[in-house]
Amino acid sequence: MRKIHVIGIGAGDPDQLTLQAVRALHDTDVFFVLDKGEVKSDLVRLRQDILEAHVPAGTYRVVRARDPERDRAADGAGYSPAVGDWRNARADVYERLIADELGADGRGAFLVWGDPSLYDSTLGILEEVLARGSVAFAYDVVPGISSVSALVARHRTGLNRVARPVQITTGRRLAEGFPEDVDDVVVMLDAHQVFRRYADQDIDIYWGAYIGTPDEILVSGPIAEAGPRIERLRAQARERKGWVMDTYLLRRRPKEPQEPKG
Amino acid sequence: MRKIHVIGIGAGDPDQLTLQAVRALHDTDVFFVLDKGEVKSDLVRLRQDILEAHVPAGTYRVVRARDPERDRAADGAGYSPAVGDWRNARADVYERLIADELGADGRGAFLVWGDPSLYDSTLGILEEVLARGSVAFAYDVVPGISSVSALVARHRTGLNRVARPVQITTGRRLAEGFPEDVDDVVVMLDAHQVFRRYADQDIDIYWGAYIGTPDEILVSGPIAEAGPRIERLRAQARERKGWVMDTYLLRRRPKEPQEPKG
Ligand SMILES: C[S@@+](CC[C@H](N)C(=O)[O-])C[C@H]1O[C@@H](n2cnc3c(N)ncnc32)[C@H](O)[C@@H]1O
Ligand SMILES: C[S@@+](CC[C@H](N)C(=O)[O-])C[C@H]1O[C@@H](n2cnc3c(N)ncnc32)[C@H](O)[C@@H]1O
Repeated sequence: MRKIHVIGIGAGDPDQLTLQAVRALHDTDVFFVLDKGEVKSDLVRLRQDILEAHVPAGTYRVVRARDPERDRAADGAGYSPAVGDWRNARADVYERLIADELGADGRGAFLVWGDPSLYDSTLGILEEVLARGSVAFAYDVVPGISSVSALVARHRTGLNRVARPVQITTGRRLAEGFPEDVDDVVVMLDAHQVFRRYADQDIDIYWGAYIGTPDEILVSGPIAEAGPRIERLRAQARERKGWVMDTYLLRRRPKEPQEPKG
Repeated sequence: MRKIHVIGIGAGDPDQLTLQAVRALHDTDVFFVLDKGEVKSDLVRLRQDILEAHVPAGTYRVVRARDPERDRAADGAGYSPAVGDWRNARADVYERLIADELGADGRGAFLVWGDPSLYDSTLGILEEVLARGSVAFAYDVVPGISSVSALVARHRTGLNRVARPVQITTGRRLAEGFPEDVDDVVVMLDAHQVFRRYADQDIDIYWGAYIGTPDEILVSGPIAEAGPRIERLRAQARERKGWVMDTYLLRRRPKEPQEPKG
C-alpha cells in the first residue's frame, strides 16, 4: 500500500521542526513540491534546505509540479467561488503525482507550511483524491508549529486570556466586523491590513511578518500607535522582497470603566 | 543576567518536541518542576523522561517545588475568583525558585505542557514576578505542539473549514451557549462533557483523550451517535487511570436545506 505523510514543517524557522517530522522525513522516498511560481521561491527554498539538513542525500527524490493557478484577485483576501475549480485542478495534480511517482509500496510526503490544520488545503485534496477511488493510499498527519503559535511565542504572550476564548479568522472575515463574544482574535490571510478599521477602538495588536525567518519583523501596541508603523514596515518589506506574509493577534481591552483619554 | 526558557514540550508525545526545544533543553542548567500532587504524576514523569532522553545526565539539575493548591471545585470547569490568589501564591514560588536556585548568569527552564500560549499561566506569572522588581531575568518562549494541533492531526482533519474561522474555548464557556458566528469550536478544560447539551443539533464531534500517549483514545461522529460512546470510554479510562485529559472539536454542519430526519 502507498503511504503518504502530510508533514507540518513550521512557519519559517527550520528549528521548529518536530522530532516526529524529522522521523517522517527519513521515512519518505519521494517528496512532492508544488511550485507556486517565482514569487514565494524563498518558501520553496526553505523546504529544500530542510531536506538537505535532515535527510542524507541520495536517499530520496524530489518531484516538482506546477500548482494550478488560482484567481490572483482573490489571493490573500479569502476564497472566491473559483476555489472549487482550483481545488479540483489541484486534486488532478495530486492524483497523478501519487499514481505515477509512487511505487505500490512507496512512501511520499507533502511538506506543509506551519501546521496542516490551519488554512491549508492538503488534507481536503487528499480526501478528494481518495474519494475518486482511482488511486489507493494510507496517510497520516504530523502536526507542526503554526504561524499563530510562532507569533505569540515571539511576542511572549498567550493566545487566550485566563478562562477566555480566542478566535482564529481571516482578513476578509474581519472586514465584516469584529467577531462576537470574543476579545482575542488572530487574523491570517489579510492582504489589506484590515486592523486599520479598528484603530479608534481600545485594541492592542501583536503583529509579525516573516516570523521565524531572518527577515522577521515584530510590532506591538495599541492599534492607533502601532498601526502606522506596521503599515510602513510592511510596505517597505514587501517592496524589498516582492511578497509578504504576516499574521496578527488583536486583543480588545475589557470593557471596564476607564480613564478618559487625551 | 539570569535567563529563563519557557519551553513548550507538546501535549503527550515526546516526539513532538521541536529541535528548538531540544536546543533550549541543552542550554539549561536548572529545570523547575512544579508538582501538582499525585494525581497527574504521569505528566511529571513525562517531563523527566524528556530530560533523560535529550540531555546528558550530570549537565543539569532538577528543582522540584510544590505548586500551591487551588480550589478543586473549580478545577477543569474554568476559573473561579480564587484564581487571583492562586496566581499570587504561584508568583511567590516562582520568584523564590529563580532568586534562590539560579546564579547571576544561570539558565533556568519551565517545561510547559503543549504550547505555552494556550490556557497556561506560566507567562503571566513570570510577568508578575518581573513587575514585582525583586529579581531580574530575561526570558524567551519556545512554542510547542498544542493538544489542539495534536487532536486534529490524529483525526486527520483541519481546524477551520475553507475561509472560515475557528474558536478555541473552555467547557465552562460552551455551557453558556454555542459561540456566535462560528461553526468550528475547539473545547478544552471541560470536566463535564458539555458537548452532550448539543446532541440534538447537527454537529460532528472529533474527540481525543490522552492524545499522543500510549493511552490515547479517539472518537468521532455526530454527537448523537459518538457522545454516548465517548461518555463510556471516558468514564472507564478515568476510573482506570485516576485522571483524564480530553479535548474536542465541534463542527456544526452548514445550515443548508437538508433531508428531514427519521
Ligand atoms: C495559507 S495560510 C497557511 C497557514 C499555515 N498552515 C500555518 O499554520 O501557519 C498562510 C497565512 O499564514 C500566515 N503565515 C504563515 N507563515 C507566516 C510567517 N512566517 N509569518 C507571518 N505569517 C505567516 C499568514 O497570515 C499567511 O497569510
Ligand atoms: C491547562 S490546559 C493546557 C493546554 C496546553 N497548554 C496545550 O497547549 O495543549 C489543559 C487542557 O488541555 C487539554 N489537553 C492537554 N493535553 C492533552 C492531551 N494529551 N489529550 C487531550 N487533551 C489534552 C485538555 O483539554 C486539558 O483540559
